[in-house]
Amino acid sequence: MEKPTLPKGTRDFGPAVMARRQFILDTIKGVFKKYGFQQLETPAMENLSTLTGKYGEEGDQLLFKVLNSGDYLKNADPEKLKSKDSKGLTFDISEKGLKYDLTVPFARYVVMNRHEVTFPFKRFQIQPVWRADRPQKGRYREFYQCDADVIGTDSLLCEAEIILMIKEVCKGLGIDDFSIKVNHRGILTGLAEIAEAKGNESSLFVAIDKLDKIGEDKVKEELSSKGFSTNSINRIFEILNFKGSNLEKIELLHSRLEQSEKGTKGVQDIKQIIELLSKFDLAGDSFELDIALARGLSYYTGAIFEVKINNVGIGSVSGGGRYDNLTGVFGLEGVSGVGFSFGVDRLYDAMEELNVFPEDTEESTKVLIAHFDEEAMRYGLATLKALRREGIAAEIYPDVSKLKKQLDYANKKKIPYVVVIGSDEMKSGDLTFKNMKTGEQQRLTLEEILIQF
Amino acid sequence: MEKPTLPKGTRDFGPAVMARRQFILDTIKGVFKKYGFQQLETPAMENLSTLTGKYGEEGDQLLFKVLNSGDYLKNADPEKLKSKDSKGLTFDISEKGLKYDLTVPFARYVVMNRHEVTFPFKRFQIQPVWRADRPQKGRYREFYQCDADVIGTDSLLCEAEIILMIKEVCKGLGIDDFSIKVNHRGILTGLAEIAEAKGNESSLFVAIDKLDKIGEDKVKEELSSKGFSTNSINRIFEILNFKGSNLEKIELLHSRLEQSEKGTKGVQDIKQIIELLSKFDLAGDSFELDIALARGLSYYTGAIFEVKINNVGIGSVSGGGRYDNLTGVFGLEGVSGVGFSFGVDRLYDAMEELNVFPEDTEESTKVLIAHFDEEAMRYGLATLKALRREGIAAEIYPDVSKLKKQLDYANKKKIPYVVVIGSDEMKSGDLTFKNMKTGEQQRLTLEEILIQF
Repeated sequence: MEKPTLPKGTRDFGPAVMARRQFILDTIKGVFKKYGFQQLETPAMENLSTLTGKYGEEGDQLLFKVLNSGDYLKNADPEKLKSKDSKGLTFDISEKGLKYDLTVPFARYVVMNRHEVTFPFKRFQIQPVWRADRPQKGRYREFYQCDADVIGTDSLLCEAEIILMIKEVCKGLGIDDFSIKVNHRGILTGLAEIAEAKGNESSLFVAIDKLDKIGEDKVKEELSSKGFSTNSINRIFEILNFKGSNLEKIELLHSRLEQSEKGTKGVQDIKQIIELLSKFDLAGDSFELDIALARGLSYYTGAIFEVKINNVGIGSVSGGGRYDNLTGVFGLEGVSGVGFSFGVDRLYDAMEELNVFPEDTEESTKVLIAHFDEEAMRYGLATLKALRREGIAAEIYPDVSKLKKQLDYANKKKIPYVVVIGSDEMKSGDLTFKNMKTGEQQRLTLEEILIQF
Repeated sequence: MEKPTLPKGTRDFGPAVMARRQFILDTIKGVFKKYGFQQLETPAMENLSTLTGKYGEEGDQLLFKVLNSGDYLKNADPEKLKSKDSKGLTFDISEKGLKYDLTVPFARYVVMNRHEVTFPFKRFQIQPVWRADRPQKGRYREFYQCDADVIGTDSLLCEAEIILMIKEVCKGLGIDDFSIKVNHRGILTGLAEIAEAKGNESSLFVAIDKLDKIGEDKVKEELSSKGFSTNSINRIFEILNFKGSNLEKIELLHSRLEQSEKGTKGVQDIKQIIELLSKFDLAGDSFELDIALARGLSYYTGAIFEVKINNVGIGSVSGGGRYDNLTGVFGLEGVSGVGFSFGVDRLYDAMEELNVFPEDTEESTKVLIAHFDEEAMRYGLATLKALRREGIAAEIYPDVSKLKKQLDYANKKKIPYVVVIGSDEMKSGDLTFKNMKTGEQQRLTLEEILIQF
């Protein structure tokens, strides 16, 4: 018999990893809920008509398509079959696909339920998505996304609260050293006007977004090759190279972009976000206004965010922004909002690298009851019952085995305390209570054990 | 533009439903963890080689198959394409499928990780599975399963603890009136021996399992048509019709099945489970020994369980049993265990019918801060900050709107308390604190509000 394997790019999460992932997800979920977000779940499968055309041509290629049930070839075009036209045949034999992200299903949900949804709608969603990407280190074909969005309001309070939530999540995870970078699509548009980039905006944004990675010279080269004049490039870099506090940057942008309506709006928005954050005791530099931040997506129309953890070799762990038109692709115009998401896999890797997972994350059971024989095992059931009655996660080793085996079991499962029961214990009623971390053991009554927790 | 739809048999879970589902799942998960079970997650997709042949021919038909990526027709058999041989072509163009249950992926996991797993392995798994069933009321193509298994031990303590866990879950969900039915494969085998059913056992089990639904006469007819003699049928029904306590049934079975080795083992196991439960203060009739319970699956080799909620028109909400050979299909023999699972959708429907969801399940935010104008909104941010600092889920209405709209928002979102801020409140520092359920409102200081929680 062949040894079973996992499909490429997919993973099992065994107990140890799962406990750590759950710690991350619970922390994020707790913060989302504290800020008034409500959970939504959508199915794994969506109609291909919902998914296709939303992620560009490359995205369409990366959708996992589900074969129709039954005699799926019945109505397939014989010509396509004969010519082995894989691309052409796909929609004849498949009408469903696995979801590629959480945004399109969210938009679909809002359109389908627009009369029931309470706006402003603060929703979060934590579910796996699937992409038929080439698997590689840190890139999987099934992975969790963790999104929160507020739709149906233009209030900049939402942007301010996203920054608060990012800070609270990082704090909850034990990540101290991180940077929140913020920019605004209006500021980028203003820069494009200064650079006389009309019709060439996205080349500009793509190039300057790489500033961090490839450096000033390379970006300038790229811009030059895309037809930007030396004058334009210099005007842009005068701004990009400006060093200063957020308020100083705002001042500079205010004067440089005063001719640009969108640029001015962008600067004002950022200023207001800072002002709102001050009401939560955050200083003006609680985030970094990063004029070069562009985040690819042309989808964003307002503030954009990106979070990096410092001193680890891992890309951004969170990002998002404001958009004007979530549901236009489904015929419902005017649904604007702002959202952000956390990358669970990257957070996991970063936390592992920083060694900040709390030690007890992997603890599931608090107490194991170990025993020397059948009689001691039965005697131990009363202890087990009493522990669980107090809400303490407890288990008894279910077989009569050598004590060493039972202690090994506790160690492997990271169970911090073991109660050992033998004939002495049964005679005296005092139980042996062993701390597995220190190795220390005491004789305690059941009552004395219970008050340890 | 066409209105988007959901694939047949799939569902969105909006905030209200999601909160209730989460209550069920959290309760179950809490009990699993309290009993020392650890969480496992496996991918949605498995190789078809892992899935096929495990669920019978009908099951294979119900697997959702995922189309290979790229030029999937390239190596397809031209003959199959020409003859539109859907069945034959499937494995040429698809090598992955969506998981059909949690048991086969668990077995696959155990085989792949047998050197790392700590035995006895107590694992639970709460994930969606997919079946291309015809959608109908209460039957979906994507639904959650909720499994817990202990493998690597024959201890009957596991069976006793399953009964404890079922009771604890029902109690946690507010379900008081339910029946746990237990039987044993050995007892069924003993009955088959009495009925001289050699080679015809499954016909016997299938027939008597329907006793509840179709009644004695119909079952007798069916048995007769399957070739059972009147004598055999009478011998069986003398046992099946016996009314009495579990201990009386055990006594009867003990005498009737004394010739049957497996029957005797079955009776002894049940007796021991009762004895173990007595150590947890459960009476001998804390479950019902139901000699007719067979649960279809020939997979089970020991005790079998089924849970029904009384006075609701819903099938069993939980079930399971002991098995001898979890992983034999993957070439690893001798992995025995016992497991059970909860049907989340059925529990949901039952709880709705019984109206036992706690009233606050749908509450997400505890306090909404409402306001009369921009200035009051900004004033309210300090209150918002203070509430959240205390860990209270709170939000502020993000736009300047009519108070009625803000209170409607609170009502729709089931937010129980609203703090209203206007010029009076800003002047005096006393905030209006409104209980949305009673309509009662008071003027309180921020400190006085905080101590309400």
